[in-house]
Amino acid sequence: MHVVITGGAGFIGYRLAEAVLARNDMVDQNGVRRAVDRVTILDQVAPERPLADARVRIVTGDVTERAVLADALDGTPDTIFHLASVVSGGAEADLQLGLRVNLDGTRTLLDLAAESGRRPKLLFASSLAVYGGPQATHVSDATIPTPMSSYGVQKLCCEYLIGDYDRRRLIDGRALRFPTIAVRPGKANLANSSFISAVIREPLAGRETVCPVPDDVPIALMSPGRLIETILQVHDLPTETFGWPRALVLPAVQVTVREMLDALEEIAGPEARRRVTFRDDPKVLPMVRSWPAEVSSARAAGLGITPDRDARTFVEQYAREQGFVS
Amino acid sequence: MHVVITGGAGFIGYRLAEAVLARNDMVDQNGVRRAVDRVTILDQVAPERPLADARVRIVTGDVTERAVLADALDGTPDTIFHLASVVSGGAEADLQLGLRVNLDGTRTLLDLAAESGRRPKLLFASSLAVYGGPQATHVSDATIPTPMSSYGVQKLCCEYLIGDYDRRRLIDGRALRFPTIAVRPGKANLANSSFISAVIREPLAGRETVCPVPDDVPIALMSPGRLIETILQVHDLPTETFGWPRALVLPAVQVTVREMLDALEEIAGPEARRRVTFRDDPKVLPMVRSWPAEVSSARAAGLGITPDRDARTFVEQYAREQGFVS
Repeated sequence: MHVVITGGAGFIGYRLAEAVLARNDMVDQNGVRRAVDRVTILDQVAPERPLADARVRIVTGDVTERAVLADALDGTPDTIFHLASVVSGGAEADLQLGLRVNLDGTRTLLDLAAESGRRPKLLFASSLAVYGGPQATHVSDATIPTPMSSYGVQKLCCEYLIGDYDRRRLIDGRALRFPTIAVRPGKANLANSSFISAVIREPLAGRETVCPVPDDVPIALMSPGRLIETILQVHDLPTETFGWPRALVLPAVQVTVREMLDALEEIAGPEARRRVTFRDDPKVLPMVRSWPAEVSSARAAGLGITPDRDARTFVEQYAREQGFVS
Repeated sequence: MHVVITGGAGFIGYRLAEAVLARNDMVDQNGVRRAVDRVTILDQVAPERPLADARVRIVTGDVTERAVLADALDGTPDTIFHLASVVSGGAEADLQLGLRVNLDGTRTLLDLAAESGRRPKLLFASSLAVYGGPQATHVSDATIPTPMSSYGVQKLCCEYLIGDYDRRRLIDGRALRFPTIAVRPGKANLANSSFISAVIREPLAGRETVCPVPDDVPIALMSPGRLIETILQVHDLPTETFGWPRALVLPAVQVTVREMLDALEEIAGPEARRRVTFRDDPKVLPMVRSWPAEVSSARAAGLGITPDRDARTFVEQYAREQGFVS
């Protein structure tokens, strides 16, 4: 089967590509377990570390261009993991860019998926950013999406369009509302949640960092390892088991920066912790406070999807991945 | 102030234009009561009955064309009533047409409204079709939108985009979720709800009609008179009073075809009632059963918005308007 990953050079996309390639088989859109014989990675740039596997094809280009998406799908998509996106800070800074990439790009992808006639599975990276405002500090299956960011609005519109293409049996659509994912390696990005990774990543690398929110602000998090497992788990579910509506909130564990730093100190010592200083950022703090702090989903639990254990999980997973601990 | 009405030649749009022209003044986007000195009516065709008023300008054209919308707004919109839309049956029959008109047309309008720099009021005709499925038989402010039609999905996406443009202070956006509006004069349209008007309109005109649903299916309705009053009432509210989120469900009264026919018989006699026969339509009936049968909104009630009284209201209003009774 042919698996396409948009945003496949990114933090999640690259790990997902590795995980897909490591599998012998996956359940295709007809419920049949099949070997993954083609993996197409679409992103603006090629992955930094090449994926040494003959099944991989890299397509570089912009998801706003129909020809680029058509090249990636090649008329033969069986599964599309659609992760390519302008992040929250970027979509807030440039409304039209966000609309073009996040909304129009997804629409073009939906049309190409439909035109393939294969009714491919389309797993969409949505976000907890579809929730917002005072009523959304605790999110459950019963929470009404009320996004307070352009990013959240664009993701939500995509979810509903995916639901409609699914209802029309043009695709098998499944949208997952990702919590904030940490710890991210590499440089900070424009996401307002960037600091959550920085407070672990930077001290471990011997660098100072400034945390823009107080250390007791609760944040709903998921680790990259847990997320990849969850995506592949949801992918293989029978379409009726995934159920309706076609968007699902992923469970997150609630942690604070203080708990993260406690774990950091246990693993890397008090000098690592001292590299983090605090200065509230009036642009970031209200945004973070508007995010859901508690996330649970009876529906996700019923599908066997579980959150990470605690703050220590995040620090350990990152330190192990980066070779700080074995 | 300059008022623009898209879909202004249609059933609701034309009545709204008449009502706006009949007013001495309206509350503008700065909270100032001002005279309505320009009313622009945009539609695919000119209204059947001309509006004899020097303040009126008619623009005919397609809302999918930016130049047409730009002509209508003329760079000076103070209030935009955005009613132009492909109806539910049409959007279901042609997905791309619905997306182009209902979603892309609204986006172009939003951008032009924003570019005017006037932060105009934009009142959007959304629909109860944003709800659907088993959990939506009773709709309240706490009901999660889960549309089961392409029309509902497109309306919902527009609502969220309007909310975002409002949050960014590019417009003062207010979306109203209209119930089914009856009784409609003229010919049946592609809306799945078309029969609700037909069972009153056709017998009153001496014509036979077939009702595609059983006479005891509950339907949430609003009369055109009540709707126009409500739209103008919501228009004049201070923006903070309208509140958040920027979409509001309008209250409806629950009626059945049987109650409508009881009222018809009282007004026009048993021979009128006998002109309605029943034959379940397997395409229409499931759609109608998926609609909300009960609609209430504490938020709307708090704003002083009230539903129609009972089934008789609808028949009387139509019979009076059409001159069947005085």
